[in-house]
Amino acid sequence: MKIILASASPRRNEMLRQLNIPYEKMVASTEEIGEEAIEIHTVEDIAMKNALAKAQGTADQLLETMVPDEDAIIIGADTIVTYDNGILGKPVDDDDARRMLEILSGKTHEVITGIALVKIPAGSKSTRFIIGYDTTKVTFRKLSQVDIDNYVSTGEPTDKAGAYGIQGFGVFLVDRIEGDYPNVVGLPLIKLFYLMKQVGVDLLAVSTGKNGL
Amino acid sequence: MKIILASASPRRNEMLRQLNIPYEKMVASTEEIGEEAIEIHTVEDIAMKNALAKAQGTADQLLETMVPDEDAIIIGADTIVTYDNGILGKPVDDDDARRMLEILSGKTHEVITGIALVKIPAGSKSTRFIIGYDTTKVTFRKLSQVDIDNYVSTGEPTDKAGAYGIQGFGVFLVDRIEGDYPNVVGLPLIKLFYLMKQVGVDLLAVSTGKNGL
Repeated sequence: MKIILASASPRRNEMLRQLNIPYEKMVASTEEIGEEAIEIHTVEDIAMKNALAKAQGTADQLLETMVPDEDAIIIGADTIVTYDNGILGKPVDDDDARRMLEILSGKTHEVITGIALVKIPAGSKSTRFIIGYDTTKVTFRKLSQVDIDNYVSTGEPTDKAGAYGIQGFGVFLVDRIEGDYPNVVGLPLIKLFYLMKQVGVDLLAVSTGKNGL
Repeated sequence: MKIILASASPRRNEMLRQLNIPYEKMVASTEEIGEEAIEIHTVEDIAMKNALAKAQGTADQLLETMVPDEDAIIIGADTIVTYDNGILGKPVDDDDARRMLEILSGKTHEVITGIALVKIPAGSKSTRFIIGYDTTKVTFRKLSQVDIDNYVSTGEPTDKAGAYGIQGFGVFLVDRIEGDYPNVVGLPLIKLFYLMKQVGVDLLAVSTGKNGL
């Protein structure tokens, strides 16, 4: 069994590496849907659709060039920060980051990550998939203008949905969370664990060097 | 202002380092109280007493050799894992780790970290202190014997209260948390942030390279 992560996110890749999970990174370019879709889809659906698009896009690209000689599982993920029925994407500049942090200050928002697994059985050109999502509530402390200026000056908001990273200096913005912590970083590891179980992979066993594949 | 961490814990030291907080490590040997004290003290009180003993012990040792020429803040911390009115300390061996993980399996327990700050004003031989604590609820998924054996085989439980580390392979044991995540790792950074504010230090500013001391 081969595990493929269809994500260029440094944080998602770092998480799998730190857990000693053998995997390959393979990212196909895909179209994502965003805030414009919120009229017809729930945020959870958008996250799962994007996750599936990433995993399926990578599976299709893989199958164009080869038929795998062992089972392959392709993992796609999409993280969305949502507050008050809106989506907070990656900030376009520092002012946009400030605007988002002011919205989140003193409030509870949700981080939703959609996860999709696409399986290519060995020797096959067909694929199957399962999808799921995890939600974590994140409560910010009340931020001052100085807090926001200091935080934005680090550059940390730049490439992050909602303009913060909980695993960096952003830890000083967050009062509490409810749910899975890695989900806020960008990969809901316990949801991934349960989904992988469904396709016959024991991630804890893999991670600890046992035969879990 | 000088910051001193009175803890040998690799995880606490790593957290301050990763956040670019300039500090020195200085650990005095102190007597800790444990499960035997639970008849007369709450778990929160035990954690705060131990945290204060560590910080005050280090302050006393420091003052034996010098009078600091700048303000010094000494941070002490003590993390306790508690379930069903009992304390789960560091496991004495692998069987003890298995016993603890079986207790925690499928249940919600609490991680309580006491924090103490001891301040030595510049040129003074006297000290002042403030204390506090933070509580995070941690819910384990239902573990199988294979899960427990695989996890214990990593050696990760050895030096950890409650026999797990949420920042390592233990992430696959935890379904969800409620509260501050770094508190479960061993240092409640948001509580530390608030306590440091009370002694005039802005940890976010310090961490981001601004003048917060």
